Amino acid sequence: MVNTFYHVLKGSTVMEDRMSIIVFSGTVDKLMAASILATGGAAMGMDVEVFLTTWGLEAFRKEDYKTNRKISKDFEEYGPIMMEQMMVKQVPSWMENFKNAKEVGNVKIYACSMMMELFGRKQEDLEPIVDEVTGVASFVERAKEGKITLFI
Amino acid sequence: MVNTFYHVLKGSTVMEDRMSIIVFSGTVDKLMAASILATGGAAMGMDVEVFLTTWGLEAFRKEDYKTNRKISKDFEEYGPIMMEQMMVKQVPSWMENFKNAKEVGNVKIYACSMMMELFGRKQEDLEPIVDEVTGVASFVERAKEGKITLFI
Amino acid sequence: MVNTFYHVLKGSTVMEDRMSIIVFSGTVDKLMAASILATGGAAMGMDVEVFLTTWGLEAFRKEDYKTNRKISKDFEEYGPIMMEQMMVKQVPSWMENFKNAKEVGNVKIYACSMMMELFGRKQEDLEPIVDEVTGVASFVERAKEGKITLFI
Repeated sequence: MVNTFYHVLKGSTVMEDRMSIIVFSGTVDKLMAASILATGGAAMGMDVEVFLTTWGLEAFRKEDYKTNRKISKDFEEYGPIMMEQMMVKQVPSWMENFKNAKEVGNVKIYACSMMMELFGRKQEDLEPIVDEVTGVASFVERAKEGKITLFI
Repeated sequence: MVNTFYHVLKGSTVMEDRMSIIVFSGTVDKLMAASILATGGAAMGMDVEVFLTTWGLEAFRKEDYKTNRKISKDFEEYGPIMMEQMMVKQVPSWMENFKNAKEVGNVKIYACSMMMELFGRKQEDLEPIVDEVTGVASFVERAKEGKITLFI
Repeated sequence: MVNTFYHVLKGSTVMEDRMSIIVFSGTVDKLMAASILATGGAAMGMDVEVFLTTWGLEAFRKEDYKTNRKISKDFEEYGPIMMEQMMVKQVPSWMENFKNAKEVGNVKIYACSMMMELFGRKQEDLEPIVDEVTGVASFVERAKEGKITLFI
């Protein structure tokens, strides 16, 4: 009987209640989606880990979010309407969403060490909401024990 | 012995055979990819949940798919060849793929309530293939018990 | 007692230590991200399966990577700086990363059979690093038993 259970359990996985989000893009529409998903995950009690890389990393440079008006080029004709509706309907910005998500739950924001080096950035160049600089392998190691991993 | 099993099982997860697809983009090439993955999932017997948000939601406005010729700007020079080859080789459109996937298997299409409100849309503004308007938290809750979650 | 365990185990999943990456995009910045994630997965001892489709497939046409200078249009103003920094800091190209990942670990690269047919490609038109042409359903079947699935 023990063997039976061993066989059944072999390879089963102890999964963490974790959502991992790789934020590659730095357009406002995608950052908004990432921040809403992070908020949704935190609201459901999940641990949320955000890994900033490439243009997503650039979007977290100090003060950059205050002037970032980039919308995916594929849909840029809708950009002004989207921005206007967000103002009119007082939708919190993606940065506010990330801040709120951190207050609600266990949300960590990591910066990709390789891209930091490539772009010559130091952690003090980034918004203080970024918790740590880390490598992709250590992010992947935690993501693989989680339940949802997204590339945005 | 009970304790041993308890320890082994603690944190293990009862996973559903589910594929969850967040459709953020509204270009034909990405909608095609989403519809083919949904078809593949349904063909493998998986439950498929599609969550339409931002530009993916706009692409499901009534009649919109009939005139949508958007191709990712990064590759728009290939757009005319792709469209032509799809005509010549009689490849079903992404909308037909989603319809077929719903006939083959258990495929549900949800519209993001927050983006509906932001863009001032009602469910009757969307194609009838959309099953329901729902919030991101309830989508995430089901996705996290599934096996594959994608952001397209 | 057996029934109890049966109930607890019902639906539990034997998961493989696998990362599955759908490479849809063919821009250098996204190919770089895909190759780094594949490298990270291989370094962590995971099986890595890469599924090339649409513009990601085009990027693996023979010799194409030697002249591909595409950067996501949303961030193309940063393209020249990124390319220059990659030269100065001698960052390996995405193709070199994929080659290295294959040497380090178990990394397989598949080409989407449907897109091959649509674009009229044969396997000999692709870089030799591509292992096999396969269908989306068989890719999904393996991905769903894995731990991380990404759409890039």
